[in-house]
This record gives sequence, C-alpha cells and structure tokens, in this order.
Amino acid sequence: MSYKITVIPGDGIGKEITDSAVEVLKKVDEKFGLGLSYTYKDAGGTAYDKFGTPLPDDTIEACKASDGVLFGAVGGDKWDNVDPALRPEKAILGLRKNLGLYANLRPVKVADALVEYSPLKPELVKGVDLVIVRELIGGIYFGDKCESEQHNGAERAWDLENYSVPEVNRIAKLAFETAKLRRGKVTSVDKANVLATSRLWRRTVAKVAESYPDVELNNLYVDNCAMQLAIRPTQFDVIVTGNLFGDILSDEAAVVGGSIGMMPSASIGTSTSLYEPIHGSAPDIAGKGIANPMGTILSAAMLLRYSLHEEEAAKAIEAAVDKALADGYRTPDLWKEGFQKANTEEITKVICERI
Amino acid sequence: MSYKITVIPGDGIGKEITDSAVEVLKKVDEKFGLGLSYTYKDAGGTAYDKFGTPLPDDTIEACKASDGVLFGAVGGDKWDNVDPALRPEKAILGLRKNLGLYANLRPVKVADALVEYSPLKPELVKGVDLVIVRELIGGIYFGDKCESEQHNGAERAWDLENYSVPEVNRIAKLAFETAKLRRGKVTSVDKANVLATSRLWRRTVAKVAESYPDVELNNLYVDNCAMQLAIRPTQFDVIVTGNLFGDILSDEAAVVGGSIGMMPSASIGTSTSLYEPIHGSAPDIAGKGIANPMGTILSAAMLLRYSLHEEEAAKAIEAAVDKALADGYRTPDLWKEGFQKANTEEITKVICERI
Ligand SMILES: CC(C)[C@H](C(=O)O)[C@@H](O)C(=O)O
Ligand SMILES: CC(C)[C@H](C(=O)O)[C@@H](O)C(=O)O
Repeated sequence: MSYKITVIPGDGIGKEITDSAVEVLKKVDEKFGLGLSYTYKDAGGTAYDKFGTPLPDDTIEACKASDGVLFGAVGGDKWDNVDPALRPEKAILGLRKNLGLYANLRPVKVADALVEYSPLKPELVKGVDLVIVRELIGGIYFGDKCESEQHNGAERAWDLENYSVPEVNRIAKLAFETAKLRRGKVTSVDKANVLATSRLWRRTVAKVAESYPDVELNNLYVDNCAMQLAIRPTQFDVIVTGNLFGDILSDEAAVVGGSIGMMPSASIGTSTSLYEPIHGSAPDIAGKGIANPMGTILSAAMLLRYSLHEEEAAKAIEAAVDKALADGYRTPDLWKEGFQKANTEEITKVICERI
Repeated sequence: MSYKITVIPGDGIGKEITDSAVEVLKKVDEKFGLGLSYTYKDAGGTAYDKFGTPLPDDTIEACKASDGVLFGAVGGDKWDNVDPALRPEKAILGLRKNLGLYANLRPVKVADALVEYSPLKPELVKGVDLVIVRELIGGIYFGDKCESEQHNGAERAWDLENYSVPEVNRIAKLAFETAKLRRGKVTSVDKANVLATSRLWRRTVAKVAESYPDVELNNLYVDNCAMQLAIRPTQFDVIVTGNLFGDILSDEAAVVGGSIGMMPSASIGTSTSLYEPIHGSAPDIAGKGIANPMGTILSAAMLLRYSLHEEEAAKAIEAAVDKALADGYRTPDLWKEGFQKANTEEITKVICERI
C-alpha cells in the first residue's frame, strides 16, 4: 500500500496547521501502516510572491497526480491591492475548477465538550449533527459575467446563475448517498418561488429522490433555511444546495457549531479530492504557534475516509481529538478558566499521544 | 389633515392582525387627530379565489391613490397547486414592482423583555439595534430568466443577477441617510470576491459614501455577514445589501431578534410605501384569534413615521407595545409561566389602553 498526499500550506497560519495535521497523519501511518508520502506545493499569496501567480501549474499537476490534497488556508491583507485575477482566493477557485471538485461536504457536529462555545443556547446545539453538501463548480460562481456595460442608458454589471440537469443530478446523488449512510434525511435548499434555476434544481432533485425510497426529501427556501439553522439546527441531517446558497448557509451552520477552528471540510472531485479547514489564514496570529490545528487535523481524517477509504485510521484521529477535548485541553481560541491551555505544538502532541 | 390608508389583509391570519393594527391606529388617531381613513382591498390567495388573480388592478390602483399601505400576509398550502404565475407570493412581488418599492427596511431591535426569546445567548442579543436595508425591485429577482433551454447538450435554467449604478446609488443613499439618523455606521454586504455585480455594487457604494463623511462604511462578504449576525449582532447599525442577500440575511437577523411575531418592515416606494410584519400567513392558526398582531402594529407605527411623518404618534404606538410587554402581557407564541396570556383581541386592548 502507498498513498501520495499533496500538502498545500498556503498563507498565514497555513504552514503551522498543515504541519500539525501531517504530524498526526504520520502517527496514524505508524500505527496502521498506511504508507503515506507527502509532496509540498505552493498556492495563494505565497505562490504569487514567489511565482507571480496564486496557482502555479506545477501545483495543479501535483494535485492531479496524488491520492488526496491537504490544504491549509490562503489570503491576507497583504495581497489586497493585487490584481483581482491574481488574488489568493483565485487559487482555491482555480483548484476547484481544475480538479473538478464538484461537491463541498461540511459536517457540523458539535462535540459535547464544546456545546457551550456556540452563540446559540446549549439546549439548541446539543446533538447537532448535520452535513451541508454544497455544489462547488457551477452556479453563479462560474457562470458568464460582465463587469461593466451600458444598458438602458446606465452602467450595469451582471452574473449568470445557472444549473444544468446533469450538474444537479450529480450533486443530488451524492447528497442521497450521504444521507443513506446517516439518518436518511435530505433537505434541498433553493429559492424556487423566485428563481428559474431553483425550479429546475427542485424538479431534478425530486427525480433523483425516486431512486432513494428510503431517504426522506424536504424542500426549503433559502431564507427559511437561514432561519431554521438558527432556531433548531438539530432538525437537519443532510442539506444539499447550490454554490452561492451553500457558501452562505455553510458558514452560518459553522458558527452554530460554535468553534470555527474545529470545522473540517472535504471538496470531492471526480478523481482527486481536497481537504481543508473552513477557517481562514488568520494573518494576525501567523507564526505565533497558537493557531488551532484541529480543523485541519479533522480534515486529514476526512481525507483518510473519503479518498483512501481508511475508515479505521480516520476514526482513530477523530476519537483522539474528542479525547483531547474531553481531557480538558484547549487551544487559545477555545480556552476558558479551568482548562489546560495548549498551543499548536502542544495540542498536536496531546492528540498524537491519544492515537 | 387627512390621510388615506389602504389595508390589504391578505390570507390566513392577515385579517386578524390587520384588524388589530387598525384598532391601534384608530386609537392614536383619536389622541393625535390624524384624520386617517381606510380602504380595504384583496391580494394573495383570497384575491385569486375571488377574482382569479392574486393582485387585482383595483388593488394596485387603490395603493397608488393612498398615503400608505398596511399589508397583512399572503400564502398558504391551499394554493400550492395553483399555476406558479398566479400564486399568492406573486401579489407581493407584483406590489413591489408596481409601486416601485425599491427598499425594504427591516429593523431588528430586541426589547429587553424579549431578550430571552432569542435562540442566541442573552448576552449576545441584549442591545441589538440594527436595520437591514434591502434592495427590493432589482437584482436576480427581476432579471431575465429562462426556465429551460438546451445548452452544450444538456437542459439548463438560468437567472440573471444584475445591478445598475443608478439602482445601487438609490439604495445606498437611503442606507447612508438612515445611518445618519442612527449610529452612523453602514455595512455593505456583497460577494465581490466572486461576482461582477458585487464589484459594481461595492465601487458604487464607496462613491456614495464620499458624500457622507460622518458615516463609517465597512464592506463584508455575505458569507461572513451570515456568521457575524450570529456571533456578534450588536456590531451592526445599518446593513445595506441586494435583493437576494437581503432576503436571506434579513430572515436570519429576524431570528436573532428572537420573536418573529414582533418584527415589522417597511417597503419604501418613490411615492407610496407599504408596511407589513415579516411573518407569514400562518394558515394553521388562522381564525383562532391567537395570532400575535404586534409585528403588524409596529409596522403601522412605521407607516406613521415614514409615510405620514407623524413621529409622535409612531412613538406612542411603540411605547405602548413596550409597556404591554414590560407589564407582563404575552401572546401565545411568546407565553411562558409567570406571564399574563393575551390573545389577539386582548393584547390589542392592552396596547390601546397604553396609548
Ligand atoms: C474565498 C471564497 C471565494 C470562497 C467561496 O465563496 O467559495 C470561500 O468563501 C469558501 O466558502 O470557500
Ligand atoms: C415570498 C418571497 C417571494 C419573498 C422574497 O423572497 O422576497 C419573501 O421571502 C420576503 O422576503 O418578503
């Protein structure tokens, strides 16, 4: 057995958190004999500074040639005045498109030890266990657009929201497959009372649902979903939605989960998939060794699960993170009186010891 | 002095809540001698049942001829299978377009007595006092759309998101004017890292800001705003955004406020404006006399303020609602042990007595 992992630290705290996750991966590798190897590549502002582009071809090629990509974070004020087409975010949009990362999976599962960190009341958050399945390479993100044109005597700009039946089929199938392995409930989110694209989305999802008689399908308008996530997040199992609504709702759901530093994500591609924490590059604390690496560590667990099908190793990581929290260790972002403060290096060690 | 108000009860609990608000209006009219008169018109499912259209021309004409429109709510499962073009929601979209209701103002102010009703922790909600200014007759809601076409060998649907400079100018000015009378802070929400329309939005808002040196302008991405509303809603004063983002964020913000039944809104037009509670028509409790009319009563107060410039009368209503709550009265949706339960009729009486 042998697996090739491309590691893209990116900018800001990216190096610290991916270093930590790789240490944890090495530990499970030792234990389970996975045969993992690592290739490091640049992306984001760091790549721009070195090569004049946020996403070198070399990085794309390495990703394509590997079994899974572990991504840190990109961005920072430093690149605010760079040409929009060369900003750090373009790296992540470019990777999505080039690797065909059509689905973003965002689990929000609140560890009992972390219930109190949510802005929501503990009784609303306890037991939350949902996944948002966001379409990631279609919709208004990648539709035609126009920065400026004259129209009816005024300057206007536009973007085309659009979905095709095959695009919706693909993401809907993934959502139903995901739900089958969970609590069997899919909530499809759209704005079908206003948007034609949403009406095509809704009727296509309904057709896919026919092949999954054991999975329950509900439709919800996006505005209502934004409410329900805050009122009663435990009602959700799998939420499936388009690129733009998914962007908004998955960030809202992450906050409900309480500690952004803990949240992993998987971006599923047709051949290679990419895994990253949902938080940003936090330039303000970069290099200080205090970043919370657990979102990245849990992303590495998702990589083991979805790309390498090493379920046992994935579970070992997740259990070790839970155990570290239950044992009272907290990174600075989560620290409160009565707990044991652990910086990036310390929490990594604590987690490795529990594997 | 004499003012003409068009009242559109609509469907479900619409009749009960507008009846209640009109009673309160009559009470302030008595006290302040406003000379209010009322014309009742149909819209929504009720209008569809009577006239075969959710928005009769006669209703539009009456609105145009009046000084302000008080709207209840429309919709209900009953009309789920009606031709999409004739569904109850079309009444509200049609009124927006026909009356040129270009801005939706959604204040979220949490009365001290209601802090505990929010899903958020009380310490996060106490002191929340924000207004969302949503553009209401542009953007993807009213852009060109296509229900189905062949494209690259597949069926697709599309909707055009678009904004022109004059549209953004108009809504931005309203936001800055609103902020000037408040705490002097505007947060403009967009997705400028992805959408061309958002980039035009952002540069246009920045230009408008130059005329308001005393108002502070911040830009926020919509995904981040969805987070911030849940993490620290007290940070906001005026939020200005487009039609679709406004739909989502204003509903999320309403939930943060705690009790949807309490939330009013104003849709500002170039000549006539429309006022309605943000909640729906609640067919399940229609006719039972238990609906919370306070969102509609507070909408009537906004009508007095913005359309009739009767600030004193508006304040009298708002103070009476606050007083009723502080005195321990609660409609069934808000009732808890230790409080005085009041149905629609009773809470109306309690509020009238306090004017
Ligand atoms: C950086 C940005 C383009 C990106 C997105 O909107 O998809 C981010 O918000 C995300 O959700 O990964
Ligand atoms: C009913 C629907 C078309 C409407 C909208 O999306 O604008 C509603 O959600 C609202 O916010 O008033």
